[in-house]
Amino acid sequence: MAKRGMLIVLSGPSGVGKGTVRKEIFSHDNNNKFHYSISMTTRKMRPGEVNGKDYYFVSKEEFEKEIENGGMLEYAKYVDNYYGTPLKYVNEMLDAGKDVFLEIEVNGAMQVRKKVPDGLFIFLTPPDLMELRQRIINRGTDDMETIDKRMNKAVDEIEMMQNYDYAVVNDEVVKAAEKIKTIIRAERWRVKRFLPDYRKQLGLEE
Amino acid sequence: MAKRGMLIVLSGPSGVGKGTVRKEIFSHDNNNKFHYSISMTTRKMRPGEVNGKDYYFVSKEEFEKEIENGGMLEYAKYVDNYYGTPLKYVNEMLDAGKDVFLEIEVNGAMQVRKKVPDGLFIFLTPPDLMELRQRIINRGTDDMETIDKRMNKAVDEIEMMQNYDYAVVNDEVVKAAEKIKTIIRAERWRVKRFLPDYRKQLGLEE
Repeated sequence: MAKRGMLIVLSGPSGVGKGTVRKEIFSHDNNNKFHYSISMTTRKMRPGEVNGKDYYFVSKEEFEKEIENGGMLEYAKYVDNYYGTPLKYVNEMLDAGKDVFLEIEVNGAMQVRKKVPDGLFIFLTPPDLMELRQRIINRGTDDMETIDKRMNKAVDEIEMMQNYDYAVVNDEVVKAAEKIKTIIRAERWRVKRFLPDYRKQLGLEE
Repeated sequence: MAKRGMLIVLSGPSGVGKGTVRKEIFSHDNNNKFHYSISMTTRKMRPGEVNGKDYYFVSKEEFEKEIENGGMLEYAKYVDNYYGTPLKYVNEMLDAGKDVFLEIEVNGAMQVRKKVPDGLFIFLTPPDLMELRQRIINRGTDDMETIDKRMNKAVDEIEMMQNYDYAVVNDEVVKAAEKIKTIIRAERWRVKRFLPDYRKQLGLEE
């Protein structure tokens, strides 16, 4: 049986730009030894987004049926929409010894932390809260009330950082993506991931 | 007051080549943001070694005096010689917010782990035990009895790997050095090292 793959979770407050950083990470994907798991959502498609690439875009009814069937690794309702990770693809890849990369909301990340405690959890943070506010305004898809709600939520979310293994500041997309790849690379040499296999190689397994 | 620096410890069984890997790491030292702390030893200087660069070479009496005066961060007696780290330089660098790199024996590393639990501990491992044996023989500085003693010790030392944060296989010196640098880089973004400063930057410190 192959060694089970590593589950990599990138999360962070809404508006921090984790989708952009994730796209940068996978834009040169021939060098990556991990595979992106596409999330499922009930939110509306934005201009430029592609179904089955950016997200699986489904109806509220379809999403709730998946939840009932136990088909979601994690999910969260966020600004009146569901976001989540279908379990099937993730398990297939991990069982085949491949590393899987999730880019998900913070509520979902905490569900995954409970289910997969030996996963690798990376938190993407804004350079500061004011810049987060500006980014959300610039996106121009939400009204002020929604923005204030997100702002308050962001302060709580930053406090959540302590539930993650690593934190990367998203000051520049390319740099942040490179840092995340460095973390994933280094993490493969962590003793807790490395020792069981190494003992076998040396014939020390009893 | 500056943030205290990170203490980085590279260790591994005798003969694994940790001195060679350490030299490779510091051969392009302009890019490193950490500083090498030179060990002190009572063993004889080998051809090509320089006092004050490879080690501080001292007499048994001088070394034991330092131990008595509490001047050693760690030390170990190994194949009838003392090896250890003088405390003074390490503390000065850490207090100034600089990261310090130690390359030390496994007994010493465990003493440091107890004193500095939030240090970064990296274990250098041989590709396999037979290659370790060959490397020790090739070095040609010890007789067979010493080699057998080291071999038995090495098996125990590999078991010690679980006391380290990371393990890097020394299959190729340049690659091993590069992996260690990657680990050090990534480790700076670990939440446990990162969060206290970040909270201050965001004005969330109470």
